[in-house]
Amino acid sequence: MSEHWLADRTRLIDTSGIRKVFELGARLADPINLSIGQPDFPAPVEMQRAAVEAIQQGRNGYSLSQGIPPLRESLLAEVRRELGQPDRDLLITSGTSGGLMLALLALVNPGEEVIVFDPYFVMYDSLALAIGARVVYVDTYPDFRIDLNKVESAISSRTKLIVFNSPANPTGGVPSDVEVQGLAELAQRKGVVLLSDEIYRAFCYDRPFVSPARFNPHTLVIDGMSKSHGVPGWRLGFAHGPAPIIREMLKLQQYSFVCAPHPLQWGGLAGLKADLRCHIDAYRSKRDRLVAALRDDYELVVPGGAFYLFPKTPWGTAEEFVHEAIDRHQLLIIPGNVFSRKDTHFRISYAAADATIDRGIEALRKLARGRRS
Amino acid sequence: MSEHWLADRTRLIDTSGIRKVFELGARLADPINLSIGQPDFPAPVEMQRAAVEAIQQGRNGYSLSQGIPPLRESLLAEVRRELGQPDRDLLITSGTSGGLMLALLALVNPGEEVIVFDPYFVMYDSLALAIGARVVYVDTYPDFRIDLNKVESAISSRTKLIVFNSPANPTGGVPSDVEVQGLAELAQRKGVVLLSDEIYRAFCYDRPFVSPARFNPHTLVIDGMSKSHGVPGWRLGFAHGPAPIIREMLKLQQYSFVCAPHPLQWGGLAGLKADLRCHIDAYRSKRDRLVAALRDDYELVVPGGAFYLFPKTPWGTAEEFVHEAIDRHQLLIIPGNVFSRKDTHFRISYAAADATIDRGIEALRKLARGRRS
Repeated sequence: MSEHWLADRTRLIDTSGIRKVFELGARLADPINLSIGQPDFPAPVEMQRAAVEAIQQGRNGYSLSQGIPPLRESLLAEVRRELGQPDRDLLITSGTSGGLMLALLALVNPGEEVIVFDPYFVMYDSLALAIGARVVYVDTYPDFRIDLNKVESAISSRTKLIVFNSPANPTGGVPSDVEVQGLAELAQRKGVVLLSDEIYRAFCYDRPFVSPARFNPHTLVIDGMSKSHGVPGWRLGFAHGPAPIIREMLKLQQYSFVCAPHPLQWGGLAGLKADLRCHIDAYRSKRDRLVAALRDDYELVVPGGAFYLFPKTPWGTAEEFVHEAIDRHQLLIIPGNVFSRKDTHFRISYAAADATIDRGIEALRKLARGRRS
Repeated sequence: MSEHWLADRTRLIDTSGIRKVFELGARLADPINLSIGQPDFPAPVEMQRAAVEAIQQGRNGYSLSQGIPPLRESLLAEVRRELGQPDRDLLITSGTSGGLMLALLALVNPGEEVIVFDPYFVMYDSLALAIGARVVYVDTYPDFRIDLNKVESAISSRTKLIVFNSPANPTGGVPSDVEVQGLAELAQRKGVVLLSDEIYRAFCYDRPFVSPARFNPHTLVIDGMSKSHGVPGWRLGFAHGPAPIIREMLKLQQYSFVCAPHPLQWGGLAGLKADLRCHIDAYRSKRDRLVAALRDDYELVVPGGAFYLFPKTPWGTAEEFVHEAIDRHQLLIIPGNVFSRKDTHFRISYAAADATIDRGIEALRKLARGRRS
């Protein structure tokens, strides 16, 4: 085949660095795996049961593109309870990433600018680049807080979208209500769309989650059940926002994802009633355990949510540090350059058993205290 | 919100016309529904059982982006048995439409041309337009055969891709082996990628299916289990082709669909062993029944596959004809302009119970014999 067959966009994005760590880890006999971006708890039993029944009852054909009505209506009712905003509409997407892709396609023309806070979730810049957008990075190091002055300076006449993520991957950061309100109002004042990725909202440990949509009704929210309900492989996401945007996303979904997996949507519906507090409490404890154990040896910002910690490496680039962690300690963590234009930090996921976390802590202490010890 | 927030591509594509018919039909008490593009038989029991077990065994997290190894390897082994071509690679996609989207993103730059045979499946032109391609239509009326001279004239220096679909939606057409070979070799000679959508290959009634990939090893094939196994809502597709293209599609999948629904992939694996002949035989009979009943009243090409018939309207535009079919006979069929730049034909799906087909035949005879009778 001809090399020139491949579209130019394929050169703009690289194989996920997370995947590269998985591949390194696959050679290890007994890795300490703190690299996984998915919860380690099982899907609620009632959710499994409802999905099983849907399969057995023959709900295996297409669903409506916007999702099965009871799931869509329940989620929309919940959104309205939280935000009011009767003009908001909602569609079920094929995962939160499916929602992100539809949002970018519905909103961003080639050449327009998308503002992304650095560090960022890997999909934001790759997908934006794939559809021909320019990505403008707003640096949030070292405290991962949002500096509104920096955001305002980054906004140009070509800015279409600001991508916001709280609780954040990879930092676990949860900006204060004041920061959230400031960002929401800035976007509104500037006539720029604010996209809020709320996939980790259930994992907010120190205070209730506050969506920027509260302060700016034009905020487009993408969300999903993957993380909160332990079903990332079910591809169950949803998006809500101004009805005209949701309408265009739905139109695009008809020609791409078609619908979220139908029988699993029935599982999702049953999952809405599940009590997830025990999992959230367990994850809060995991965070506390990890932060307490590492804060003397690592420079780190205590994360308010998600299930990640993003400490600074005590020596070397993150690539170097992570290679040593894998080679000498079988510890799988992700170098910061996967999520950032810098390579100074690394991501630990504590979506893991406590015993694994404890093994990870031991390895991380050794790594910090004696280089090549 | 601002009207200018929406991307230009949203104006290039329209809500699916199929959906509009569904909406018209939703008001009817007892419609004769011959509009549905999905099989009416249930998923094989062993397939349901395997998906159920996967859910219960906790296979609810992400799978590898390329798909679970046993499914991927089984499908690849089958492809190799059919085609040889050891350089071919394969990935599991989120439905065949997911594979189509990844293929377009991996191959087509904005401004490049995609050749589509008219009539065409609705996604081909909409998705190509959505990613900024120019669509070049090759007219195949009235016999829906491929005229290689027309294809050759349509190829320009900007042509990247020819989209081929056999058995075809909406015509049910299965081009002869000679046509397929001619097209495959033409694409190769011209250095243009041939994309072959083989989602209906199991529904080939009069002779064995022949893929253009047999004659052109650079053919990119998209395929899936939705239609053959009665699970369109499971979103289980796959794509195979030259390894460098599959590699780029996989990279793009990591940032978009992530993976096909994980537990349902285990169902798909079990489904590979299912015997589908009884369904195919039943659909052949449905085709024969419908063709025999309509050929005196309608100008039609006897379709060799899929589960569609695409007759010419006996009077009026297809829009007018379909509106009368719905209004006066509660008959849901799809006007040709949904699949074509012409509006002279209409699509009947016979993926329906025989009783429904018989009611449809009666209504169609009345429609042909007495306008407004």
